This record gives sequence, structure tokens and C-alpha cells, in this order.
Amino acid sequence: MRCSVFMLGVLLAAACTRGETPAPAEDAEADAQKRAPAEIIAEAAPEDWRAIDPENMLVVELERGRVVVELSSTLAQNHTAQMKALAREGFYDGLSFYRVIDGFVAQGGDVFEQREVKTAKKTLEAMFDQPLTADMTFTPIEDTDGYAAQVGFIDSQPVGADAGGTTIWALHCTGAMAMARDIEKDTGGTEFYFTLQPQRYLDRNLTVFGHVVDGMEHLQALPRVVRAETPGDDVSETILSMRVAADLAEDKRPALEILRTDTATFAAYAESRRNRPEDFFYYRPDHVDVCALTIPVREIAAE
Amino acid sequence: MRCSVFMLGVLLAAACTRGETPAPAEDAEADAQKRAPAEIIAEAAPEDWRAIDPENMLVVELERGRVVVELSSTLAQNHTAQMKALAREGFYDGLSFYRVIDGFVAQGGDVFEQREVKTAKKTLEAMFDQPLTADMTFTPIEDTDGYAAQVGFIDSQPVGADAGGTTIWALHCTGAMAMARDIEKDTGGTEFYFTLQPQRYLDRNLTVFGHVVDGMEHLQALPRVVRAETPGDDVSETILSMRVAADLAEDKRPALEILRTDTATFAAYAESRRNRPEDFFYYRPDHVDVCALTIPVREIAAE
Repeated sequence: MRCSVFMLGVLLAAACTRGETPAPAEDAEADAQKRAPAEIIAEAAPEDWRAIDPENMLVVELERGRVVVELSSTLAQNHTAQMKALAREGFYDGLSFYRVIDGFVAQGGDVFEQREVKTAKKTLEAMFDQPLTADMTFTPIEDTDGYAAQVGFIDSQPVGADAGGTTIWALHCTGAMAMARDIEKDTGGTEFYFTLQPQRYLDRNLTVFGHVVDGMEHLQALPRVVRAETPGDDVSETILSMRVAADLAEDKRPALEILRTDTATFAAYAESRRNRPEDFFYYRPDHVDVCALTIPVREIAAE
Repeated sequence: MRCSVFMLGVLLAAACTRGETPAPAEDAEADAQKRAPAEIIAEAAPEDWRAIDPENMLVVELERGRVVVELSSTLAQNHTAQMKALAREGFYDGLSFYRVIDGFVAQGGDVFEQREVKTAKKTLEAMFDQPLTADMTFTPIEDTDGYAAQVGFIDSQPVGADAGGTTIWALHCTGAMAMARDIEKDTGGTEFYFTLQPQRYLDRNLTVFGHVVDGMEHLQALPRVVRAETPGDDVSETILSMRVAADLAEDKRPALEILRTDTATFAAYAESRRNRPEDFFYYRPDHVDVCALTIPVREIAAE
């Protein structure tokens, strides 16, 4: 699988064992041998970054701080539409995280079914995986993975794919946002969770539709509570508001950009994470787990 | 590698593809097909559990709560001796966590070198990996791993091993406790860190000597701070005390037991985590990451 690049489900560049890499990858790797991950990021060109679209950004305000989520622009689109509709209804405002399990998930929503949905759906069809289509660019990484035949990224979202690269799904890395459900597949609608650690066994069993790009430390700090059973039970923390960033006044919108994953810079970054070149490192595993390959996010500098 | 069992560096039971498993493993798997992980744990026999030795337990008191660490009873013994000596000196009492990076580590100790070590060493030789010796029982799991030829457990500590099973090292799963250092190998002595997420790229680059068995949520909630540079800089939180549990009054000692990993119950538990049998799951990956295979810990019931 090494160095293969799937785009639109078509294998564009095969080749590639570690001994016989084609020129672009070889350049990226030679480069990475000299530069630490932080240097590669510091020296990335402006076009290596992508501004996060406010229309695809959820802003969750908690007492302890702000959590920002990028919704996938191509995966699980019914779910992203649902979350945006719910945020725009103000559905979550004043509700809570009612199940926060250390090392597992922080789950929130309307556990006691006290609210009516208005423009959104009460439940929607699960999308555990989906076909790779022409509007997606899947950039696989070369690293083996125990849970999926291939892993990589679509935009900044970690994804898995089958061996043929025809079916894909978003991964439960740390900070994934996904739809909770009952035992039956299509029962999710309003209850969501964030993963506090990688939970790859949930892949293809629930629908992931975005991931945290800022404020993960606030979710990690939420008081741990077992699932509240009645309205009198302890909950973890109130959701002050959840909004689509585009609906906020311009000066209240998070201005964030994220490293593009379909670039030579990202390939160099991944290689540098596989085999850290700094003198600090004595052993280099020649591997990086897809969930450990965190994608840099930064504030857009004021002009 | 499937189903091989290394003990004392000797391959005791080879065999084993998924199609031709020997009887004990087959029983465990058939069993696991019926029982969810929680059921297997609930039904575990008393002898499947091991009380954590107070002499190998560190108790770290923070304002927000208590963190309990099991030091390895066989790996990196110079480091466990060092940490116990420092705890017994009261070295860490009143010091702080001064570097807490979300998704990475919480590091603590004497960043400004204000204290003298008394019975402990100022620095000690790194032990990034070590030979598998007769006092260790390595129970590999069958799952592939990108960072190590083999992975498994020694006692409850996740470990990696080379292909021959002669060299082993403790893994940087979430909650690992390890010795920080400067660029040179043997410069660690008093500064330690806990991993907040798996950081497998640090494996064999630093010395892991234990892991959190209770209170991980308190470490996850620590205020995030970049490394303090001068005594006036913000630190994250004060370490009220760090003690060896054996030195505490008996009623103040954590009374914890942990699931043994060298048992049929653990094999069944691992298989059940690989392929969750509950109706909730629609896709079963036939894989579990070693760092996701969390080892159950519980309070010892009062007699």
C-alpha cells in the first residue's frame, strides 16, 4: 500500500516500497530527514493551509471554555446538515453533557427527551461507511493499521478505507464527533458524543461526521459522570450554546486554518513523525498511527 | 504470531492461525462469542484478579483528587527504586506539574532545580528496553502492531517485544508513567511525565516504569500550560504529596486489584474486545489495539 494515492477511487500512483519511491515522495522523505515536524509546519507555505469554512464549523460554548468542531464537508452529509439544523434551532442551548466516561466519550444532548426538534429530523439513517465519490480526495498514508485495510485523510478528517479504496468511513480518533444511537442502526438524531481517546472499535458502528479542531482540553476536563437516568441525576456540565460559526458576528467567529493533507508538506510532516530526525530520538519506528498523526490547526494571523 | 505464548523468552505454544487454534484458545473464543467484555469481567473468578502490592503503588495527591500508579514489578527496576526513594524523601511534595500539553503529556517534578536529592540518585541510566528474563511472564496478544513486532502484557503493563521475544519494553499507552530527560540518554532522574494519549513514538526513547490504575481523569483535567521557564511562570497544579502506598496508614492505602493478563479469562476478554458480541455492533474488526485493551481495575471488596 505504500505511497499509493487514491483519488476519486482510482489508483493514480502505484509503485512504492520503501526502497523504490518515486521522485516526489523521495524528495519529501529526504527533506523530512533534515527537518523536525515543528520545522516543517513552521516553514509550510500559505497554500499548505486551508481556512476552516465557518459554514462547516460548530462552536460549542461551555462554562470552562469554547470547543470548535470542523464538520466534514464531504462525509456523512446528512448528519452534518442535521447538526447544523439543530444548532440553528438552538436545540442544544441549556442542555448538557450527561455521560462522560474517562478515556472513552463525552456524550451530550437531550437525554430526557424534553425538547422537540423543529427543522431537524427526529432520527436519521445511519451512515457507518459510504462510497468514495468524485467530490472527495482520499490521501492514504502508507502505514499499516489493524482496523482498516487502508487509512488516511479526506481533508483533515482521518478515514479508513477498504482494500479497493471504494468504501470509506471517518475514524474514531480522539476528538471525533459522532451520533449516538440505540441498538437499532437508524435511531440516532440528536444525541452526540466526542471521543476522549481513540475508540477505533466504534468505526463503522456509528456515524462520525466531524472532529474537534480547538478546545479539546475542555472536553478532557469535563467532570466524569455515568449516564444520568432521571432529570434529578447529576450531569457533567451545561452546554451554554452550540452555534454554526457562520451565524456568529464576524468578530466572534473562530478564525482557524488547518494543514491540508493532500500536499507534499503533509507527506513530509507524516514522514518526519514516522522517523523523528531530532537528536533526542534514539529509536525510530518507521511508523505512525493514523490517530497519532494529528493535523496542525492555527489561528489565522490578522492582516 | 497469533496464539503464540512467550514465557521466560521461550516459545511455549506455537501453532495458530485463526483457522487452527488449539483447544484452550478455541474455548476462550467460543466463550467470548457469547459474552460481552463486561460480562466476562463480572464473571471472572477471584484468582483472575491480582491485588496491587502497596510496595509497588505510588499515591499522588492533587487538589482535584488522587492518582494511583502501579510501578512495574519487573521492568525498569532502577527507575521504580528511584521513584520510591524520591517519594519516601518527600521530594515531590509541594512541587508541581509544570508542563501539561493537551493530548500529549503532563510533566512534573523540580523544573527549577530547587531541591536536593537525598537517598535517590540525581540521574540514572536509561532503560529504553531490556532483555526478557526469567522473572517475567510476557503474554503476547495476537494483534498486529505498527510500532513493535509483538505486543502484549507483562503483569498488567502493556509491552512491546522484538520478533524473537528476547527484548522487551513498556509502552507509552495512555497513563504511562515515564522518566523525562534531556537530549542525552542518561540524564533523567527526577522529572517524570504521564501520557494523556498513546504516544507510541516515545517507546524505546524514554523509560516507562509504571502506569495509572486510578484517577486518570484528574490528570486529564489538569490546566494546560507550556513548560514553565522561571519560578514566576504559571504552573499547572501543585503535587500535594507523592507517597509509596505501603508507607500510608492501612486505612489510607488504595485497596485495588487488577485483572491478571496471563489467564484464560483475559484471553476471552481480549477476544471479546476484538469482536464485540453485543447486538449493538454491526461491524467487527477482528482487532484490538494494545493501548485500547484497557485492563480492568477495581476496589477490593471489604470482607
